[in-house]
Amino acid sequence: MANPGPGNSITLRIDAPSNFSVTSELAAAAASAGAAITALDVVESHPTSIVVDLTCNTIDDEHATRIRDAVEALDGVHVRQVSDRTFLMHLGGKLEVVPSVPLRNRDDLSRAYTPGVARVCMAIAEDKSKARNLTIKRNTIAVVTDGTAVLGLGDIGPEAALPVMEGKAALFKQFANVDAWPVCLDTKDTEEIISIVKAIAPVYGGVNLEDIAAPRCFEIEARLREELDIPVFHDDQHGTAIVTLAALVNALKVVNKTIEDIRIVVSGVGAAGNAIIQLLLAEGAKDIVACGRDGAIVAGVEYADAHRREIAATTNPRGFQGTLKEAMVGADVFIGVSAPNVLDEADIAAMADDAIVFAMANPTPEVDPVVASKHAAIVATGRSDFPNQINNVLAFPGVFRGLLDAGVSDITAPMLVASAYAIASRVEEDELNASFIIPSVFDPLVAGAVADAIVRVVESAAADKE
Amino acid sequence: MANPGPGNSITLRIDAPSNFSVTSELAAAAASAGAAITALDVVESHPTSIVVDLTCNTIDDEHATRIRDAVEALDGVHVRQVSDRTFLMHLGGKLEVVPSVPLRNRDDLSRAYTPGVARVCMAIAEDKSKARNLTIKRNTIAVVTDGTAVLGLGDIGPEAALPVMEGKAALFKQFANVDAWPVCLDTKDTEEIISIVKAIAPVYGGVNLEDIAAPRCFEIEARLREELDIPVFHDDQHGTAIVTLAALVNALKVVNKTIEDIRIVVSGVGAAGNAIIQLLLAEGAKDIVACGRDGAIVAGVEYADAHRREIAATTNPRGFQGTLKEAMVGADVFIGVSAPNVLDEADIAAMADDAIVFAMANPTPEVDPVVASKHAAIVATGRSDFPNQINNVLAFPGVFRGLLDAGVSDITAPMLVASAYAIASRVEEDELNASFIIPSVFDPLVAGAVADAIVRVVESAAADKE
Repeated sequence: MANPGPGNSITLRIDAPSNFSVTSELAAAAASAGAAITALDVVESHPTSIVVDLTCNTIDDEHATRIRDAVEALDGVHVRQVSDRTFLMHLGGKLEVVPSVPLRNRDDLSRAYTPGVARVCMAIAEDKSKARNLTIKRNTIAVVTDGTAVLGLGDIGPEAALPVMEGKAALFKQFANVDAWPVCLDTKDTEEIISIVKAIAPVYGGVNLEDIAAPRCFEIEARLREELDIPVFHDDQHGTAIVTLAALVNALKVVNKTIEDIRIVVSGVGAAGNAIIQLLLAEGAKDIVACGRDGAIVAGVEYADAHRREIAATTNPRGFQGTLKEAMVGADVFIGVSAPNVLDEADIAAMADDAIVFAMANPTPEVDPVVASKHAAIVATGRSDFPNQINNVLAFPGVFRGLLDAGVSDITAPMLVASAYAIASRVEEDELNASFIIPSVFDPLVAGAVADAIVRVVESAAADKE
Repeated sequence: MANPGPGNSITLRIDAPSNFSVTSELAAAAASAGAAITALDVVESHPTSIVVDLTCNTIDDEHATRIRDAVEALDGVHVRQVSDRTFLMHLGGKLEVVPSVPLRNRDDLSRAYTPGVARVCMAIAEDKSKARNLTIKRNTIAVVTDGTAVLGLGDIGPEAALPVMEGKAALFKQFANVDAWPVCLDTKDTEEIISIVKAIAPVYGGVNLEDIAAPRCFEIEARLREELDIPVFHDDQHGTAIVTLAALVNALKVVNKTIEDIRIVVSGVGAAGNAIIQLLLAEGAKDIVACGRDGAIVAGVEYADAHRREIAATTNPRGFQGTLKEAMVGADVFIGVSAPNVLDEADIAAMADDAIVFAMANPTPEVDPVVASKHAAIVATGRSDFPNQINNVLAFPGVFRGLLDAGVSDITAPMLVASAYAIASRVEEDELNASFIIPSVFDPLVAGAVADAIVRVVESAAADKE
């Protein structure tokens, strides 16, 4: 299933003899090794030789080496250097901290810094709430991780997690003009993480928890929600739940089913699975069977962890007992946030008619999406190289834009639901079909729609109180 | 001594009758109340009325009110609104976090974020030192405070300290392209501050401690230097010491004295005074008398705090006992980092010929600089409205530029000395005089000179080891 992708893009700098056919020979050699060529430039030309930059997508490092070898096998050709474009892009990191005010002369300096700044400081010292308007707190959130559950890579540590958090912060700015700052903590101690986030909170208008291993992440999130006066969002839970519901809302429209009537199987009862289940229940889902590694979670069994106990109490009304594969028989919807290849073609074939399959394990889904699409009406994954990419980027920038704009301190279930419907609504009726249930991550209007939806929820809650 | 300044700049929006002389009458009224007018714009014009924006520097809020009243006393004139330009500048804070890489399309996203970023993460997980090149750690420092000793304002808390830290971060970027991030901690516990800074350190290539009250700041600095593998700079100590030495080097040239032969009085034995004394001793000063609130620090007295004990052991070779005023008699150099107006004209008159006075208490110096200049050959302050402003902005941006470029983990005394000489050298021989011993904070070449000096120290230390 592995295809060459832009995340594995390389540029070969090649010395070659100067003749009429050399560039096409170079391209043919690279292509014969499976390279997906995206650019070929002659960067130097001499009487008998040329220098060529050949840029191509590859599958992985080993594939890049094979491409290099294939090119170098040509007569008189030498590959001077192989640059990895992903690594080149990361040199020096992906964020800058820039002044948003001019500092051209002494007058500017007198206002932005001493002595003028002292009056602003004193205004905040007298009324701490003024920090929300007079400092970066108004538009800035912390992206907090301990580096223990990064992407599919596991516990790789805070330094190795930083490129992901930088990328996330870049997306916050790009899609919703939210200033986000990576906080990668060199500790795995729950209490210490909680107290650190509380101590650094004066600078931030919100906290986005990210890639913290379960079950620690639940305790950290619950406590911070309780103890901080700024909103705390756990993207692995709430972000995933929002985009999953958004996709499901549209998918059910396509197959003409309603959430109350369907049988849903959720594979994975970690942070994401839990949050998805809670949101689906809030939206009226009646028949959810949640499966962990040991099969369906069912009432009556004594589970060690609190989340499994809650799932047992609130799902599986038919008292189904058995494996994930057994649970799939007759199911209308499969939602996977678990592990690669836990299902095969027969499992999808055993589902109800017009089945919906969201296989979101990354980078390898729970079932091969091409295989699944033979039997399911709708297939979605977390990947960008198949239709229907369920990507949290659709949710988190707009969610925080809305939270900051509304100046709220708590995130509520109605905000999550409204965000999901806002995302779903970005697919127009005439665009909606089995291969387009969710908008593109580059749809420039998604973040604003989500932010507006949250602000409306806040305003209507405020109006209800009056 | 208070003059109208740009830190107290206001804009009055004024409704006035439309006639030939009205703008000059408005200006005259404001000026009569002491306004230093910087701009006057007619923003709307109607048949019988106009709207005028009058911008002026004021002394303080009370002065602004008097100016408003003076303008409003004119016939038919109404001040619609008074805007404080300093507060306007601070709305929403002074920093932005922006992507330094393009995120235009799916290919960019595949490299900056998933799936491509995973390879960068794994490279760092395998070799943590790669974070220095592949993340923002390469160019990013933390500006850390607990808000307990902010400017001259004291313990105003982390929220109120944030505008200063934002300003500082803006200066880091503006003057030396260093990305700096404010870390304002909601704790005053020494151990907690130390452990938090250690926990957040993976993201940073250096730590700038700022406005933390003594003596806590000494312990925090010493421990972090010991326990972190990135440089830790305490601006209140080291920054002040560098610029003070820079100014002294040039001042001594002007009066033709040498550091070994002079008598120096230092007023203030807090963070700044301590660091200045250590650096002057390292540079060859022999006769320093340091004065705290109770007069000269002298060997043989039992001091409770470690820093006073160290000062007693290393300064005051003549065993001088007495008050600050008594110590001034016959002194060549006065360095004040203490409190307003602790000296008067007689004290300066009692100094040696060609005396040098650095009265750096902010905003009100230890002695009125105009009065001091009647008797001293050279007078410098921390203020921008007198000649010879001794401002840490000359030091800290270049210091961190150099530390990051050299990739060092420790700050050494030779680096501080080299930084001071680099700043001093930015005043050319033909520019040097009693009113110009230190370059302008807007001299664009200072930061680069300081950074180069630090890199040279590192290279020469490395060469010595070989």
